[in-house]
Amino acid sequence: MNEIIQTRLKNLRSVMKRRKLDAVIIPSNDSHFSEYISDYWKCREYISGFKGSAGSVVVTKDKACLWTDSRYFLQADMELEGTGITLMKEGVDTTPDIPSWLSVELGKGKVGINGLLFSVTQIALLRDKMPELEIVPVDDFFSEIWKERPPMPDAPAFLLGREYAGEDVQEKVAHVRKILKLKKKRVYILSALDEVAWLLNIRGNDVNYNPVVTAYAVVTPGTVRLFVDETKFKADDIYALKQKGVELVPYVDFEKYLHLLSGYEVVYNPQKMSYAHYLILQRFGAVLEKEPLAAGIVAEMKAIKNDVEIAGFRRAVIEDGVALVRFYIWLEEMVYGGKGVTEAEAADKLSAFRAQSPLYRGESFHPIVGYKSNGAIVHYTPSKESSRKIKEDGFLLIDSGGQYLCGTTDITRTIYLGTPGEQEKTDFTLVLMGNIDLATAVFPENTRGSQLDILARRHLYMKGLTYLHGTGHGIGHYLNVHEGPQSVRLNENPETLKPGMVLSDEPGLYRPRRYGIRTENMLLCREEKVTSFGRFYGFETLTLFPIDTKCIDLSVLPLNHRRWLNRYHALVYDHLSPYLSTKEKVWLMSKTKEI
Amino acid sequence: MNEIIQTRLKNLRSVMKRRKLDAVIIPSNDSHFSEYISDYWKCREYISGFKGSAGSVVVTKDKACLWTDSRYFLQADMELEGTGITLMKEGVDTTPDIPSWLSVELGKGKVGINGLLFSVTQIALLRDKMPELEIVPVDDFFSEIWKERPPMPDAPAFLLGREYAGEDVQEKVAHVRKILKLKKKRVYILSALDEVAWLLNIRGNDVNYNPVVTAYAVVTPGTVRLFVDETKFKADDIYALKQKGVELVPYVDFEKYLHLLSGYEVVYNPQKMSYAHYLILQRFGAVLEKEPLAAGIVAEMKAIKNDVEIAGFRRAVIEDGVALVRFYIWLEEMVYGGKGVTEAEAADKLSAFRAQSPLYRGESFHPIVGYKSNGAIVHYTPSKESSRKIKEDGFLLIDSGGQYLCGTTDITRTIYLGTPGEQEKTDFTLVLMGNIDLATAVFPENTRGSQLDILARRHLYMKGLTYLHGTGHGIGHYLNVHEGPQSVRLNENPETLKPGMVLSDEPGLYRPRRYGIRTENMLLCREEKVTSFGRFYGFETLTLFPIDTKCIDLSVLPLNHRRWLNRYHALVYDHLSPYLSTKEKVWLMSKTKEI
Repeated sequence: MNEIIQTRLKNLRSVMKRRKLDAVIIPSNDSHFSEYISDYWKCREYISGFKGSAGSVVVTKDKACLWTDSRYFLQADMELEGTGITLMKEGVDTTPDIPSWLSVELGKGKVGINGLLFSVTQIALLRDKMPELEIVPVDDFFSEIWKERPPMPDAPAFLLGREYAGEDVQEKVAHVRKILKLKKKRVYILSALDEVAWLLNIRGNDVNYNPVVTAYAVVTPGTVRLFVDETKFKADDIYALKQKGVELVPYVDFEKYLHLLSGYEVVYNPQKMSYAHYLILQRFGAVLEKEPLAAGIVAEMKAIKNDVEIAGFRRAVIEDGVALVRFYIWLEEMVYGGKGVTEAEAADKLSAFRAQSPLYRGESFHPIVGYKSNGAIVHYTPSKESSRKIKEDGFLLIDSGGQYLCGTTDITRTIYLGTPGEQEKTDFTLVLMGNIDLATAVFPENTRGSQLDILARRHLYMKGLTYLHGTGHGIGHYLNVHEGPQSVRLNENPETLKPGMVLSDEPGLYRPRRYGIRTENMLLCREEKVTSFGRFYGFETLTLFPIDTKCIDLSVLPLNHRRWLNRYHALVYDHLSPYLSTKEKVWLMSKTKEI
Repeated sequence: MNEIIQTRLKNLRSVMKRRKLDAVIIPSNDSHFSEYISDYWKCREYISGFKGSAGSVVVTKDKACLWTDSRYFLQADMELEGTGITLMKEGVDTTPDIPSWLSVELGKGKVGINGLLFSVTQIALLRDKMPELEIVPVDDFFSEIWKERPPMPDAPAFLLGREYAGEDVQEKVAHVRKILKLKKKRVYILSALDEVAWLLNIRGNDVNYNPVVTAYAVVTPGTVRLFVDETKFKADDIYALKQKGVELVPYVDFEKYLHLLSGYEVVYNPQKMSYAHYLILQRFGAVLEKEPLAAGIVAEMKAIKNDVEIAGFRRAVIEDGVALVRFYIWLEEMVYGGKGVTEAEAADKLSAFRAQSPLYRGESFHPIVGYKSNGAIVHYTPSKESSRKIKEDGFLLIDSGGQYLCGTTDITRTIYLGTPGEQEKTDFTLVLMGNIDLATAVFPENTRGSQLDILARRHLYMKGLTYLHGTGHGIGHYLNVHEGPQSVRLNENPETLKPGMVLSDEPGLYRPRRYGIRTENMLLCREEKVTSFGRFYGFETLTLFPIDTKCIDLSVLPLNHRRWLNRYHALVYDHLSPYLSTKEKVWLMSKTKEI
């Protein structure tokens, strides 16, 4: 019996009763639809005790269920014990989705949602899928029952200089104004935190890993209104923002401001605007207009890195590579010296090595350090308690990244401590071949990531193997390590790849209860050639760190892949060695030796 | 001045005036949305003089325009001369689509369409794209102005026996009834001719190349109503159909029958039902329900070939291969013997060799015989007048296919008459590598064709080359050579590939004004292996005919591709030689020699 959770559910149900709601849906996002959220918004965790990053809870008068995906089945099973909450396994054929389940469960009735936590698109989908149920937008009912609710984040924020951002606020905003034809009484609303941060060249620390600032922005023909807690900024920055045509308005006044848009044409993105804000605009007579690009104009601008941002990435991967060299030397000394380290210690140490760079501003996500069978758990993160000792006989998968003032990194390397067996080497080689095939792909303009995805998988497919995650995600510039709209995945995504986009290239292979292998580099899309057949693009591999050649089966690796790897390793050595000590250079030399 | 066309346009405009229409759209399909249409339905050709298979004409009070795609730019340019009709080049950036053009041209007004020639989906799209214009469904106004309009087709039809179809009408219909839960007052309407033909195991000759019968079908819980001209069938067949629960109703009574569905639940496919029929059903109070599968339940059943159909395909490719051996021997003798033949003569001769098979029932499409620069015109078809002489110094591309009682074929071979140069060989080899990579792909269930497409293109991409047509289309069983829903294309298509589907594999390369290369085989999708990672599919290459090894550059062709080709050629020899004369065997032996 988990009495804490049961009491919380009881309190929630009495709120529901008072408000005449037959059910409520509690999602795990904030009102900006962020991947990482501040503690203030962790309502789903509060009500269920489930700590995973993804999942929704539905509570009816007599039932409570949590929907989450396969990454979290085990964790949810444990954390839900004694709560009376049922785990609904997403992606399992027999699991109904939330609207279907609610339709069957309730027949007819009222479903309460916090309008701030659902996008306009999500509500339209829910409506479609549960036509018999009434969706009732309610305010944040957690305030009533969550006594020690943490406050909204108030971390300091600052301006990112032109030397890192490459473009001034005014230039970026002028482009938005032009594309959207903003004019008197025609404005554009931005809700996504990374889009606000990118457009206004501001960074902050309000959530883990994503250096964003809790804020909304409204672009008008003459100014940009930034809804943010002014105390986050230094006086100089506030002055500078005003000079750049940015008007600061308190974050809490955003809704009030929406009232004033009566009669305005409001350009918005239905996937990014909250339903609550949409309703206010509608009620007060704004003329709502979906923006022309499905992904969003700012998201698209942000995805295509400018020359300064690209130069910054090139610098960030050097900072990152140097830190990784030092980390892996330390790790090998510990493990081969017989001391051993735990996964959690390794993660901490890696972070400490990264922190030696003056440009470092923190991790870009929670590092995954998976030794042996832990490496097979795709989203495994070691905790201080559960963390396993790394010794001399198995694969060690480390997926980590840093936030640097000049760019964001994301790298996975799998090394073998000891001597790999035959299957280990074949598996490692097949994954590497996929990584190289994507990295060396050439394709015409207007190609979508879903068309390229198979290049990273086909060698695995031939052996009846695959991996269930995506192959590549967009990466922000000193911003979110996962950013849209570009991706390389099995799923269709209409966004085409364009020069200037940065993506990860991370095929993997996971043998449950044995080991996991993943090799991840960052790629920069660039123009490759122009022929009479059109414009062709390709990638430059940005990441600079050796791939464990000990794990390669040369009888499996084709010659052109071997050549690519040798060229890559020469490049890694050339770029990193100037920053290394003699001892480090010797180590790197041995790791980048021609095969 | 083309006075004939100008007079026809004048007559049309006087009909428009009488009916108060500001514009009319004249598409090129029939009321079953067929790819090939009977002469009766060639209204677009009648009004414009343009003979191409694709295109729509729009006529307003003072303008007339033809929209067609790049295949037909040249032909349309010539055929429209003097008609006063403007060519609108589809796919060219500056060309507006029809609804945009009409919106600008008319502002407001009435656009007449023959409701029989537009699907429900097409009308919804038009509505969306020209909200200011009123769409007015009118009856077939061509009857008023087209004096010598050809009659509706009346070719004989017959039943395809179980020995070819593999499944009886009753079994197929039972499956449809079950899936769609047909019950009293709940029926399913089929409009697509190949679906009607497949479901009822009937074949006919009403249009070129597609062995279909002009008919509609309505599946009810107790019977199948087949709306068809009864005189097409022999008395025995009519009797047999009745025995199988099929009730024949005159084709012309279909609309009248729809009136009777008042109060019925009518399951239909909005992409396949004509807007005219939809309106009738709506007016008479039927409850219209879209069928659950977007592609259509019968289309999906038809796409997945049963064992008898598959055995039939395996037999058809032998019949086809034998005919091709005889044809190419004849061709080489003519050309190398110094006589030369024209492209049109070659096409006729090929057809004659195919006709030697007792199972042959005609061509599956108009053959493409393109010598040298004509091969670079993707949809080139030689005419008696324009046809070029084939001599001993260039590529000859032949894309052709046959209809056999046991299956449909589609094959392209490009051979070099004389000695190919270096670029010719590289180009040929890159195309072949793409063909082999798709043929040998292994992929998990739930894979879409758009994910595989790049396998056929990537070697070309690497050199800045590509081709603009799709890589693969579905192929019917003694039915349409182009059938959905499966495809392998650049464009996204949500349909996944499933065992039993038959597809073409036809990458190409076209060097304008020089030559065209295409290598096309038919593939059968089949299960390859089941591992702990899931179910994996692959392809069996059905087509049996040698690929011109003289054109292969062995320094470009990887070893595993060479091995595949040698195995394939051994297979070709083994399967075809039992049916060949000694002389033919010797020829085939030399063409399938190991490289």
